[in-house]
Amino acid sequence: MIEFSSSARGMRSSEIRKLMKLAADPHIISFAGGMPNNDLFPTELIGEIWNRLDTASQQAAFQYCPTAGYPPFLETLKRYLERRGIPTEGNHLLITTGAQQAINLVARVLLDPGDDVVTEYPSFIGALAAFKSFGARLHGIELDREGIQIDRLSSYIDSLPAPPKFLYVSPYFHNPAGIIYSSQRKRELLHQVKERGMVMIEDDPYGELYFDEADKALTLPMKAEGGTETTICYVGSTAKIFGPGMRLGWLLAPPRIIEKCEQAKQSTDACTSTFTQVLAQNYLSGGYLPQYLTMLRETYRRRADIMHEALAATMPPEVSWTKPRGGFYIWVSLPENVDATKVFNESIVGGAAFVIGSAFDPEGRRNNCFRLAFSHTAEQKIAEGISIIAKAVKKILG
Amino acid sequence: MIEFSSSARGMRSSEIRKLMKLAADPHIISFAGGMPNNDLFPTELIGEIWNRLDTASQQAAFQYCPTAGYPPFLETLKRYLERRGIPTEGNHLLITTGAQQAINLVARVLLDPGDDVVTEYPSFIGALAAFKSFGARLHGIELDREGIQIDRLSSYIDSLPAPPKFLYVSPYFHNPAGIIYSSQRKRELLHQVKERGMVMIEDDPYGELYFDEADKALTLPMKAEGGTETTICYVGSTAKIFGPGMRLGWLLAPPRIIEKCEQAKQSTDACTSTFTQVLAQNYLSGGYLPQYLTMLRETYRRRADIMHEALAATMPPEVSWTKPRGGFYIWVSLPENVDATKVFNESIVGGAAFVIGSAFDPEGRRNNCFRLAFSHTAEQKIAEGISIIAKAVKKILG
Repeated sequence: MIEFSSSARGMRSSEIRKLMKLAADPHIISFAGGMPNNDLFPTELIGEIWNRLDTASQQAAFQYCPTAGYPPFLETLKRYLERRGIPTEGNHLLITTGAQQAINLVARVLLDPGDDVVTEYPSFIGALAAFKSFGARLHGIELDREGIQIDRLSSYIDSLPAPPKFLYVSPYFHNPAGIIYSSQRKRELLHQVKERGMVMIEDDPYGELYFDEADKALTLPMKAEGGTETTICYVGSTAKIFGPGMRLGWLLAPPRIIEKCEQAKQSTDACTSTFTQVLAQNYLSGGYLPQYLTMLRETYRRRADIMHEALAATMPPEVSWTKPRGGFYIWVSLPENVDATKVFNESIVGGAAFVIGSAFDPEGRRNNCFRLAFSHTAEQKIAEGISIIAKAVKKILG
Repeated sequence: MIEFSSSARGMRSSEIRKLMKLAADPHIISFAGGMPNNDLFPTELIGEIWNRLDTASQQAAFQYCPTAGYPPFLETLKRYLERRGIPTEGNHLLITTGAQQAINLVARVLLDPGDDVVTEYPSFIGALAAFKSFGARLHGIELDREGIQIDRLSSYIDSLPAPPKFLYVSPYFHNPAGIIYSSQRKRELLHQVKERGMVMIEDDPYGELYFDEADKALTLPMKAEGGTETTICYVGSTAKIFGPGMRLGWLLAPPRIIEKCEQAKQSTDACTSTFTQVLAQNYLSGGYLPQYLTMLRETYRRRADIMHEALAATMPPEVSWTKPRGGFYIWVSLPENVDATKVFNESIVGGAAFVIGSAFDPEGRRNNCFRLAFSHTAEQKIAEGISIIAKAVKKILG
């Protein structure tokens, strides 16, 4: 007789997954998936990198590696983080099976059912799912164009009977909001984190994908500025640059947290693929990244511009959206009383798809927004897809 | 302030990991790690396979895939299982990040703290760690040369106030016991599973590695014979053949269990590496496996023979061990009052290492045995290592 655990009994296939299935129809112009563009992956180079490896490295790639990570990749990654201005002293690094696992492990070692977790609204679906799976009570603090609203954050935390277990933010080319935090907002948030002695997960999958060199300074993580007085769990990933199929993420955090996460990882999947770690290590240490990033930034900027212009040309005046300065996403806001699911259903009939806003709401309520990813869809289809969605919006707005 | 979850507070770095660190010293002849031999990995072939892939497959390898697995790999794997006599109808298949994740996911969706789980004694360290991490109460039923002892299993289960959540067994070239279940023992166990309506995890990482064609029939999993009346979660892996660095395992189980495991996996690591799935799929469908397995079987049989003969030549008569018919391991039994840790400490000084028995005891008590892996160590070092250990045994026996 199968009797599921209490946490498994609470698991559901989400409404969103059903909508994502509709969006996966090849006849649909889909802006739903937050995926890199297939044509940009270094498919040939990776074969060359493999063939040039010495036998010992090739054999190591097939073998187990320590739970913390393949040591040469850990070293290479440390140097990469330091080049980005993120000092690693006072912290330990753990390689994870994608950033999703890093977020999941932190949640697992910190959360008991009923614990409070504060996130942004909107927030990353995968993080919300992980926190819910450990029974957390979630509350999302609204973002404005500069980041999380500090006064709302502060008064919400003050209203709680006990401090939240942690705060989860994604400040750099936010998924799905598309914004980047201003310097001042980061300072204010860091101040809160320090004052309250609060644990913060700082999730940074898109920071390298700024469209304008002038914004590079803004992508310096709070982890780099918080010093050892703060407990920041910094999460990164190679997914949006080197490809999510490698399943490589990392967690940079104080040793006590890494120790527990490593113990949890040990019985979860023993270690992350050595094979993909060896490839990523040799890609990074081979010096291919800077040039590749330049190409990615240009490509995604062009795609963002095409989408922005298509929106400007077709959307009615009641609709607003973020003009992205990096990353993969545009977040579209409809008037408050409009249900994005209705727009979705209408768009699907027309042949275009996106992800509705409630998916990104930790409380699953607010649904007058939706997310457009400009990263994956064929470039010449973007304007056509947006005009289908604009037509659907106009129909629903009446 | 860091406040860990109740499950994380219970996590410890095990004594075993400290011993494994000692064993990792390159000056030590180590029989500790249960790893394939580095020289046997198809390092060149994998480069050729990658270079021959069409662009669409190469691009897919860099991209996300469905949580359940990369569809062409799922198809290829189904055909592989069917060729091994394991029908997949009435079940679903889930690709996991190594077999460790498959075991972990089943434990996660079934176990609440305090639930009873029955295993073999000895049993696989990774499974025990996963079950403990979800708060299970473990009890190990002793193996004899033919498998788990049915009378002991039956009377233990009868003594419990409620049926155990599941039974975990690893019947084919057992880690660490080295045995394979007899046909009759499998029938008797299946009978128990059916009669009691009990969930069973059947873990099968080594079944393909029989040394004698005559034993092949014994490696047919109970999953193949249990039909849809039984709830068997069959766990497999490419680790011991294609290399653990790929982190590819699978779970074949009734749809209700797979559905929950897939939901749990979604927020755990989103999906398993598409990159390694694409490689494994093309390796399997390319027809390379049969010839490769023939080579592995010959190599590991020769290594097992060398170790067995070295033991026979050096061990005192009070010591017994399994003569392996497949897999990676020899399980050595000392007289009941002898502590394997003392032998370990003496052996390390002499320059050889293994894993002490208590690591494989779900209750962490019994320690008069130890595990020798003949799979990884350089072949010409096996006899030397065994003679160091035999010397240590003799010294401790006095």
